[in-house]
Amino acid sequence: MSISMYAASVPVFKQMLGSLSDVLRKAETHAAEKKIEPDALLQARLFPDMFSLIRQVQIAADFAKSVSARLAGVEVPAYEDNERSFAELQERIAKTLAFLDTLAPAQIDGSEQREIVLRPGTPKEQKFTGQPYLLHYGLPQFFFHVTTAYAILRHNGIELGKRDYMGKY
Amino acid sequence: MSISMYAASVPVFKQMLGSLSDVLRKAETHAAEKKIEPDALLQARLFPDMFSLIRQVQIAADFAKSVSARLAGVEVPAYEDNERSFAELQERIAKTLAFLDTLAPAQIDGSEQREIVLRPGTPKEQKFTGQPYLLHYGLPQFFFHVTTAYAILRHNGIELGKRDYMGKY
Repeated sequence: MSISMYAASVPVFKQMLGSLSDVLRKAETHAAEKKIEPDALLQARLFPDMFSLIRQVQIAADFAKSVSARLAGVEVPAYEDNERSFAELQERIAKTLAFLDTLAPAQIDGSEQREIVLRPGTPKEQKFTGQPYLLHYGLPQFFFHVTTAYAILRHNGIELGKRDYMGKY
Repeated sequence: MSISMYAASVPVFKQMLGSLSDVLRKAETHAAEKKIEPDALLQARLFPDMFSLIRQVQIAADFAKSVSARLAGVEVPAYEDNERSFAELQERIAKTLAFLDTLAPAQIDGSEQREIVLRPGTPKEQKFTGQPYLLHYGLPQFFFHVTTAYAILRHNGIELGKRDYMGKY
């Protein structure tokens, strides 16, 4: 008995992307009800040199797709990063979830020792093996952006609770 | 090959508690240099009904110790939750790290199917098995509080970057 690489990656990403989608839907509804300009939330950030809500959601999706793809040894899907609305953020999450559903456990299981090279051939090249890449890099990065998206919305008064963040588990 | 329950828990908690300690040290130094009342940071929160920085750090430590202890089948160390200063938060993190160091991999490995009961005998009782308890409950909760502590400090102008959040990996 032990945890498969698939179990520690794709289902965790799916849980949290699902909750992020629900959280964004609540934010959109709140904005509509209170006649708040959607951009007041979408462009909100916790400090001027931090990323906006839109960018936090984009990056959360990026880590979900890129970590899973690299562990599976398939190409990371390229996204244009041109989302401007809640609806477009929902599309980004939906297409990320759809991509995750294309990955079979057998593609990711056994990737513990797979060599992962980030930004290959550049001065910022970083080499990992699969297991520490997932546990010590991918998951902390992913949770950072999901939590920060939630934090931006809570800071702006959206009524959310820990249960919304946790999603379905 | 697959991930052991120990590898997916204790070393991840240690990485992020280490980074949280460093982040708090930078915040304390910043406060001292700018002659900021430490409580202006320690009691800061992102919204009135969210927890303060002190409470976020306490809960992050709580998830690290309680998830690890439950997986190992040992008693969860009880803390008094009486920290009031940066130095006391550092002590809480240090004693949590020391507790994690008492847990041998063999105590946690094989806990995938262990029954975990939260708040047993109460109306809020929750039952898990070890693997989903760690992957879908413990880690998301832990990362939430580590990230929110960081977010509170960034929101208050402490100069931190993603590298500080990520710690040593």
